[in-house]
This record gives sequence, structure tokens and C-alpha cells, in this order.
Amino acid sequence: MIKDAFNNKKKLSAELGFGNKNYNESVRFLNQDGTVNITRKVSDKHIGFDIYHWLLSITWAQFITLVFISYIIVNTLFALVYFSIGAEKFGGMEVGTGSEKFSQLFFFSAQTLTTVGYGHIFPNSVFASSVSAIESMLGLMGFALVTGLLYGRFSKPKADIQYSRHAVIAPYFEQTGFMFRIANKKQNELIETECKLALAINNPDTKKRDFHFLELERNQINFLPFTWTVVHPIDEKSPLANLTEKDLHDRDAEFVILIKSITDTYFQTVYSRMSYKPHEIIWNAKFVPMKQTPQRKGGISINIKDIHDYTKV
Amino acid sequence: MIKDAFNNKKKLSAELGFGNKNYNESVRFLNQDGTVNITRKVSDKHIGFDIYHWLLSITWAQFITLVFISYIIVNTLFALVYFSIGAEKFGGMEVGTGSEKFSQLFFFSAQTLTTVGYGHIFPNSVFASSVSAIESMLGLMGFALVTGLLYGRFSKPKADIQYSRHAVIAPYFEQTGFMFRIANKKQNELIETECKLALAINNPDTKKRDFHFLELERNQINFLPFTWTVVHPIDEKSPLANLTEKDLHDRDAEFVILIKSITDTYFQTVYSRMSYKPHEIIWNAKFVPMKQTPQRKGGISINIKDIHDYTKV
Amino acid sequence: MIKDAFNNKKKLSAELGFGNKNYNESVRFLNQDGTVNITRKVSDKHIGFDIYHWLLSITWAQFITLVFISYIIVNTLFALVYFSIGAEKFGGMEVGTGSEKFSQLFFFSAQTLTTVGYGHIFPNSVFASSVSAIESMLGLMGFALVTGLLYGRFSKPKADIQYSRHAVIAPYFEQTGFMFRIANKKQNELIETECKLALAINNPDTKKRDFHFLELERNQINFLPFTWTVVHPIDEKSPLANLTEKDLHDRDAEFVILIKSITDTYFQTVYSRMSYKPHEIIWNAKFVPMKQTPQRKGGISINIKDIHDYTKV
Amino acid sequence: MIKDAFNNKKKLSAELGFGNKNYNESVRFLNQDGTVNITRKVSDKHIGFDIYHWLLSITWAQFITLVFISYIIVNTLFALVYFSIGAEKFGGMEVGTGSEKFSQLFFFSAQTLTTVGYGHIFPNSVFASSVSAIESMLGLMGFALVTGLLYGRFSKPKADIQYSRHAVIAPYFEQTGFMFRIANKKQNELIETECKLALAINNPDTKKRDFHFLELERNQINFLPFTWTVVHPIDEKSPLANLTEKDLHDRDAEFVILIKSITDTYFQTVYSRMSYKPHEIIWNAKFVPMKQTPQRKGGISINIKDIHDYTKV
Repeated sequence: MIKDAFNNKKKLSAELGFGNKNYNESVRFLNQDGTVNITRKVSDKHIGFDIYHWLLSITWAQFITLVFISYIIVNTLFALVYFSIGAEKFGGMEVGTGSEKFSQLFFFSAQTLTTVGYGHIFPNSVFASSVSAIESMLGLMGFALVTGLLYGRFSKPKADIQYSRHAVIAPYFEQTGFMFRIANKKQNELIETECKLALAINNPDTKKRDFHFLELERNQINFLPFTWTVVHPIDEKSPLANLTEKDLHDRDAEFVILIKSITDTYFQTVYSRMSYKPHEIIWNAKFVPMKQTPQRKGGISINIKDIHDYTKV
Repeated sequence: MIKDAFNNKKKLSAELGFGNKNYNESVRFLNQDGTVNITRKVSDKHIGFDIYHWLLSITWAQFITLVFISYIIVNTLFALVYFSIGAEKFGGMEVGTGSEKFSQLFFFSAQTLTTVGYGHIFPNSVFASSVSAIESMLGLMGFALVTGLLYGRFSKPKADIQYSRHAVIAPYFEQTGFMFRIANKKQNELIETECKLALAINNPDTKKRDFHFLELERNQINFLPFTWTVVHPIDEKSPLANLTEKDLHDRDAEFVILIKSITDTYFQTVYSRMSYKPHEIIWNAKFVPMKQTPQRKGGISINIKDIHDYTKV
Repeated sequence: MIKDAFNNKKKLSAELGFGNKNYNESVRFLNQDGTVNITRKVSDKHIGFDIYHWLLSITWAQFITLVFISYIIVNTLFALVYFSIGAEKFGGMEVGTGSEKFSQLFFFSAQTLTTVGYGHIFPNSVFASSVSAIESMLGLMGFALVTGLLYGRFSKPKADIQYSRHAVIAPYFEQTGFMFRIANKKQNELIETECKLALAINNPDTKKRDFHFLELERNQINFLPFTWTVVHPIDEKSPLANLTEKDLHDRDAEFVILIKSITDTYFQTVYSRMSYKPHEIIWNAKFVPMKQTPQRKGGISINIKDIHDYTKV
Repeated sequence: MIKDAFNNKKKLSAELGFGNKNYNESVRFLNQDGTVNITRKVSDKHIGFDIYHWLLSITWAQFITLVFISYIIVNTLFALVYFSIGAEKFGGMEVGTGSEKFSQLFFFSAQTLTTVGYGHIFPNSVFASSVSAIESMLGLMGFALVTGLLYGRFSKPKADIQYSRHAVIAPYFEQTGFMFRIANKKQNELIETECKLALAINNPDTKKRDFHFLELERNQINFLPFTWTVVHPIDEKSPLANLTEKDLHDRDAEFVILIKSITDTYFQTVYSRMSYKPHEIIWNAKFVPMKQTPQRKGGISINIKDIHDYTKV
């Protein structure tokens, strides 16, 4: 009895990790770009903030600006130290005003940090030599971190999945199905692509939010050279059975998608997330089959922008 | 009923992601080298083109040429900037014509970019020093990217699987089997090698292309020091039951193979793809067992080129 | 019969790898920070000590101190070699005492090791040149190792899981459950988080320590943007059935947790370990639902420190 | 019928990838250090030889010697080029004999290759400058490869599993079991350790070599802080049922082990292989339980060398 109750619960409400509070206002858990619409506040800032993740997530413009500004700041700081040590402790300096000397020491710092070390200016006291020995060591390690991040950003694996702009609910064989299409936007190939589909929907009886996994006609595909139409057949066991278009709107439904795949560049596992809200679902429509153009060289070509095309039935 | 219909469909047609359009002309999805014979056009070029994947995919000759040309272009650009700043802003320059000065600034640029910085030429104005400070920083980061790519290309995991040139269809125990052989071409070992085999074949009834997974006698092997003969037993449930050699040709069959394995260098998961078309299948033949030569040191030696040998039965 | 006996045994005693000796004194296998409370002595030191693992495990302060000291030691050693070769074998040296010469050679070494190479001091005998050629090569390789470790430490994947300070045992649906809560402390997202829960408990009959896997209401969750309350329902088949709070203390119980998840930074699999001892378990309490604050931008915010809150029931 | 025949075959002979030829002389597939005792000859050398794998596999002494010799060869080659260009094309050269000039150009090359670039010698013709510009670029890329390999070797994941020197066959509960013990030799922890055990044995009836997977009492363990005694219960379904010690020798048995685990340094999956031959199996013996010494700090300590201890029963 008790056992059954549990099993029952599991089937009725597949928790996705989003909690099951029923919101009076409409809520979207996943944005269409796959980012999660939820913020976690952590009291202990030092634990919560992950600088590595942040440096990999910021845009290229932000990253390059950050590197450039850090480069100027570090050189300024070392120039200040060298200046306070005294310009006369450096060989090869030209005579000039204080600011001219500072400028020369700034560039001496840059030449030390990057280890270019032209040597027309060079330290010739123990203290000046010590600081520049430290600077060149820090330079090596700092630039190693920066270039590690640069390469890490550059080589970061990602699944560039193109989702159809809309999902459709349409006749499928002798019944109805919830369907959307995906394709690979990149030129590499995706292997063993898997899909999980879940539905988040308000429950008017319990006044809570229910989560249901939706069974798919097929949840894995070996290759993804063309497109894959993911189909949830709406049979009598489907949580969508007997729901109307209005029901999905009223109960603030959200179809949450998790795609898992392996890229053939480095055979890395990558994930992609997406969701469809009711206004992004077309009822009684079906997708237009992708136009497959034979190529002169014997292959076949498709145009990914066709993935969005559907016709009313 | 409906449920059964679905199950039925799944068994009848295992979608591989290649679509199921029936081509009037003969088509090959996978080339024998494992590349996919399909092109995806993406309207938005910036999303579709993956420079990282491309730089890992081009040949070594192309990669090295590209690096070399970029090196010349970058140095030329910086030399132009230095020249426009004025050769007199650099110490250690020899007197000479404009082109001699340009040449010296070009090599000054190279010495800055690589951070070799001999220093017989050095910047001695604020502007000249600023540009060379930027150049040495860019040099560090640029060469880090290049060497990251170089090492990435060098260490890229791949399954160097040798497939037998032909598959055979031959008696197997009391029935018939579709068989091919694989071996590891590399000196490292492959662990937990898995195989998936599917058949793409035109269906004269539906005028569409069907896809079937073919059950294997065994779909995983722990080690692969010798060869593995992958066998699909053609029993009454096999999609190949009752098909003749002519049928495979007429219906443009293609046997699509996906091998997954783990290399023992870095314990990385690697994949390999291949396909056999009807003209690469020998009927009523069996593979010649690999000759295993005992070694003086106590081990056994095989010659991988024997993998292709078969005899008619 | 025999077969059943085995199956039986498996269900009764899930070995976790901790052995099953019954300790008279209280023992904790896992510390609350997830480290394992067990030391392995290895007779052959060279095999047992893993310098790579150690360099990744020490604190940042220890790591940086180690690098700094090594830098000084290596430069001192090379300065001694250069000094024994003779200061007159180096061009650009200033006249001075022995210690002044040594100091100049020390900084020449630093300039060589970091490849900054100002060149105001340079080797001008074959032997001096040879040693500095070796030093610059060692410098390149040594700093590459150091910066590899630096980046390795920086990019090391970890699951920053926040566990609730206490577990609770409380009514759950129509029965009782053992529950604890987890959340992601980082700003990145965790995908496909899995949990395994086991119980280590002294057996007064056999005088040994038994291990039991505890079945969970759900052992995987797709996303973890909020919190996940992991629940072991205490039904009649649970090893906890009929145990009292006093029993857990007397029999020195320990609830051992293994969390497996995938971070969305690099899609790396990460693990986290924790354990609860009886004094960290609150009976007849339930967790206070996390306060979910709608954000202006449309998302939802939670405060992770609420994860510890419970109320008596 | 046919189906059963297949299933039957699968149970009787689990192919491990070693082929099933019956050798008249005794053969060992896996050495005790886990290396595979089989050589593959590949006709096309360029495909078969994997330089990356080789550079990761050679000893540290070989690797460092190789780097050092390459460094000398490359510098000699460039010195020859510089010498043929003419020593007068380089500034800062001291007057001297041909071999003195060659020696100076050799060290100029080393200073260029490592980008240390002191600058007391510098190129001052277009051709000399061009070659040194190329050398510094090659130096950067070459040392990046070397240091990539250095770090790759250093950080290479491996499972340092200590196997008991002998396996034992002894009473186990009410029957008999084949058992061996493993422990983790490293200071890091192993998570989710899995074991696969197979038996290779000559079949006197078929005159071939059979392979059988041996079922384990337990094939996965969550943590491995102490030791794990892997047990194959010899019940009536075991291929070992009714075999005597003499049978194992006569039929040249080999017990092949594959261990898979996850290290907690980087959460990498690692594999370890081993095998036991009949002379490494003790009949009617059982392992001495590992001595677990409580530590002052509250933990427990074991000594891994105890893993080999057994007593006759």
C-alpha cells in the first residue's frame, strides 16, 4: 500500500529540482537561451563566488578589457615601486623629468612582466634586481593563468543546438503528439544525442506546481547530421491527455528540455537546455520536412533555418 | 493497442538521425573514413562556423602554413605602425634607406612578439614603448593560443580502428551471420570497446528509407589486443532475414557502424564510425583466422593486414 | 538456497569499502568536509606518495610559498655554479667584492631562468654559456610545470554542495522519513545530480559493523537551482525500521552520503561526500520550505543559509 | 531453439578480445603489471606508430635525455645555418677562430630558441634576422609541446591499485570462493570502484581456449579507503565448479581482472588490469584481516603491505 503510494507519487510528480511552489504570477524557469532563471544568494561570499566560472562566462570584450586593464594596473604598481627605489638604481635610463623617468620605469616593468627584457634599461642595485626578479616570475605565472583562461574559453565544449522556434501539438500516427525539432548548428558531429523532456504545470487541486517527465517515442539518436523531431506521444497515460490549449495557458505550463550529447571534436559530453512556454506552442500544426538538396560531390545539404517551418493541419 | 503500435514502429524503424527520405539515386551517409556525407548550411555564419573545431581539423601542413603566414602578417602590421611612429624613436637603429629601416623594425617586431628581445634595437619614446608593450602582451597570448592548439592537435584522442575491407555474410553456427572484423591500429590498448550496428535500407512499400538496429551476438568486449569479429546473427527476427544479395543492391542498403571505446593512454572515451555498402559485402565467405605468432619473449604477435583475408565457403 | 543466502547478504550488508570491524570506541569514517578519516601506510614510499595530487591539495598559501622558496633555491644553486666558474667569464659585471659579484650572478640567474634576459650581464665563455643555456631550458620547463599546476589548481572541478547542518527524521506522507537538504553554493548550474545514501551501524548480534544502502524516494534530479530534499522513506524494509534515537547513538550509526553531479562550466563530473552522525540528526522535525523571492527581472531568488532551518513537529 | 543456442554460447564463452586459440605452450595474456602481452604488427608504420602515446609511455630518464639531445641537435643545426650565413652578419661577436665563432653562434641559437635573448650577440642582416625570427617562433612552439608533454606525463591519471600477491580459493560462507584483495596505494581516494573478473582456460574437448565471466558477490564499492576482497562464489553455475588445482595448471588457466574507478583528484576515470596464473593461487587459504590501528587524531590507519598476508585453513 505504502509502497504503491510512493510509486504513485513518483509517477505523478517528477521533481526537477525547481521546487513545487504554485506561483500566482507566471514564471519561466529556463530562459530560451538555456540559462536558469533563478538566483542563489550565499551569505559567505568567499564560498559562493567562483572566479574561474566567472572568467569563463564573461564576454570576450569583457575578458580582453579586463586583461588589458590588469596589465596597466600591474605595470603602474611596479613602476611606482621602482620609482620609489630610485631611478638611479637602473642602468640605461635617460635623463629627464620625474614623469619621464616614471614612464621609462613603467615600460621597463612591461618588458620585465612579459619577459621581453630588451635590456636598454636594467636594474643595477640588489633591491631593484630583487623586485624585477619577482616581477618576471609573477609575469610568467600571471600570463600563464591568462593564456590558460584564454585557451579554456576558446576550447570550451558546448552543444550548439538549434531548437525550432515553436513546438507543435499535432496528429501523430493514430493519436496526437507534442513535438519539437533540433539540429546541430556546428560543423562537427554530435554522437549519441539524448533528450529528456519534462512538464512543469500548476495543479488547481493542490495549488502547487507539479512536475512530470514526458515519455518520448525515442530518447536517443546515434548521429545528428540532419534534424531530430523529438516526439512525446499524448496517449491516455500522458499528463497532457485531455488538456486544451487554454489549460496550458491558465496553468502556466512550461516544457523543460535537457539535451545531452557527445561532440566528435574531443569526444566531450555536452549539455543544452531549453524550454517552451504555451505561447511558443502551435496547436494543429506539423513541421515541414527539411529540404534535402543532393550535392554535386554525392552528399546531401540542408539549410538549418528551415527547422522553424510548420504548416497548419 | 496504440502502445503496441508505437513499440512496433520502434522495432521496425530505428531512426539514426539521417532522416528517412527514399532517394532515387544511390546515397552513402557515412564515408569509409567515418566522415559524415552531409552538409548543414547555417544562415547565421557567426554561429555556424566553429573556428576551434576547424583549427583542430585542418591538416598539419595547413596549420603550420597558417601559423607562419599569420606571424608574417602580424609582424608586418606592427612594423608599419613602428615605421609610422618614426624610426628615430627607436634606439640602436642603423642608418639606412627607408626599406632598410622598415626591415629592422620588422625584425624588432618579431623579437618583441616572441619576447626574445635582444635589445640591440629598443623603443625610446612613450608611444613606441606603448605599442611594443602591447605587442609583447599580444605575443604571449597569441603564442599561447597557437601552442595550445598545437598540443590540442597533438594530443587529440582518436580510435584508430582498422576495419576489415569487406563485411561477409556466411554460415554462422546453425544459421547465417553478417560479420566484419576490427582491430586496434595503435600501440596503446583499447578497453571496453562497444559496437552499434544499424541498417539503412529503402523500403519498396512505403517508398521511404527505413532504419533498423541490428542485434549483435555480443556488443561489448573488455580488451582488444587481437581482433574482434562483430557478428549480427541473421535469425528470423533480423531485418536481413530472407534478403538476397540483389535485394541489398536494389534497395541501396548501408550498414552503419558506431564503435565506442576507451584508450588506456589517458582513459579517454573515443568513437569511430564506418559503413559498408552492398559492393563491400562478400556473400558466402568467412574470415581467415588471424595468424598468431608466439614471440621469443613469451607474448604473441599478429599482423593487422591479415584482417582483410577471407575465403569463400 | 545458497543463491538466496547470497542475495540476502547483499541486501543486509552493503559493503562500502570501510571494512566491517566493530569498534568499541566511536568512529567517524567521513568528516563533515567530506575527507576520509583513514590513513594508508605504504611501505614503499616512492609508490605511495603522489606529488601531483599533493601539489593540487595544499593550500594556496603553501603552494605560493613553495614556488617562491624553490625559485630562490634554484637561483642560489645556479649562482654558486656561475661563481665557481668565475665572475670574469661574464660580460657586463661591475667591479666589486665577492658578495657583490655573487649577488649580480644570482640576478643574472633569475633573468636567465625566467628568460627575461636583459643582457647587461651575459656569459662569454663556453662553460658559462653552456650552463646558462641549460638554465634557460630548465626555466622554461620548470615554469611550465608550475603554471600548469597553477592553472590545474585554479580550474579544478569541485561540487560546492551545501548540506543542511542537520538531517531530520520526521513524518513523511503516511509514514516516516530520514531527510537532509542540499543546494549548490556556486553560481554555475549542476546537472543530473545523483545521491547515494548508506548507513554504517554496529550490529550487537554479530559484534561487527554492518553497512546498508538506504533506498531513496528519488536518487536523481535533473537541475539543482533551488534545494533538493533527499528522502529515505523508513518503511518496513528499511534498516532504520524500529530503531530509536537511542539505538542510533548506542550503535554508533553514521549516514554516509555520496553526491555525483555534472557542472555546466565544462560539463565535468564532480563528486561530494558527507556524513551525519546521530548527534547531527533531529528527530520529529521538518525543514522550513526555502523562501523564494520573485526578482524584478522575472526570476526567483533564494538564500542558501535558509537551508539549515527546521521546525519541531 | 536457435536463440537458446546463442544465449548458451554467450554464457559458456565470454570473449575478452584475446581470441580463443588453444596454445600448446603456456601463455600469459596480461602481465602482473597490467601490460598486455601481445604485439600488433602494422604494415603501414605511419598509421601504427603513435608518437604521442610513446612520449607519454617512456620513462622519465628517457624523456629528459630525449629533450636534452633534441635541444643540442636543434641548436647545432641553427648554429650551422648562422655560420654559413657568416659570423660577420651578427653584432657583438668577439674575434676568434672559426670554432670559437661557431661556439658563440651555438649559444646565440640557444638564447634565441629559449627566447632569453641577452642581446650581447644579435643578428644584423636581413637573412640572419629572418632565420633567428623563425628560430624564436619555433622555440616557443617546440618548448610548448615539450612542456605540454611534461605536464601531461606529470598529471597522467592512473589507478595505483595494490593487488594481493596471491589469490586464494577457500571456504566462503557455506561454499567455496575465489578471492583476491585490492587496495589504493595513493593518498587520494578512489570512488565507485568496479571490478570485472574473467577466466581464460583451455577446453580439452574443443581444443580451444574458452573465456568465462565470473560473477562476483559484489562488483562495485563506493569508497576504497581500506581494502576490498573481491569474491567469486564457486557455486554450481560457476565455470570453476568441480575444477581441481591440477585442472587449473593443466588447462593453463588465467584469471583476468579489470578494475575501473574514479580518482578524487580530478574525478577522472582510471583503469587497472591484472591477472593471476595457477601458481599465484593458494588453495585452502584465507586472507588475514587487515590490522586497523586507531590514530590519535580519531582516524584509523592500515599498512598496505599486510594485503598479501594469508593463512592456510
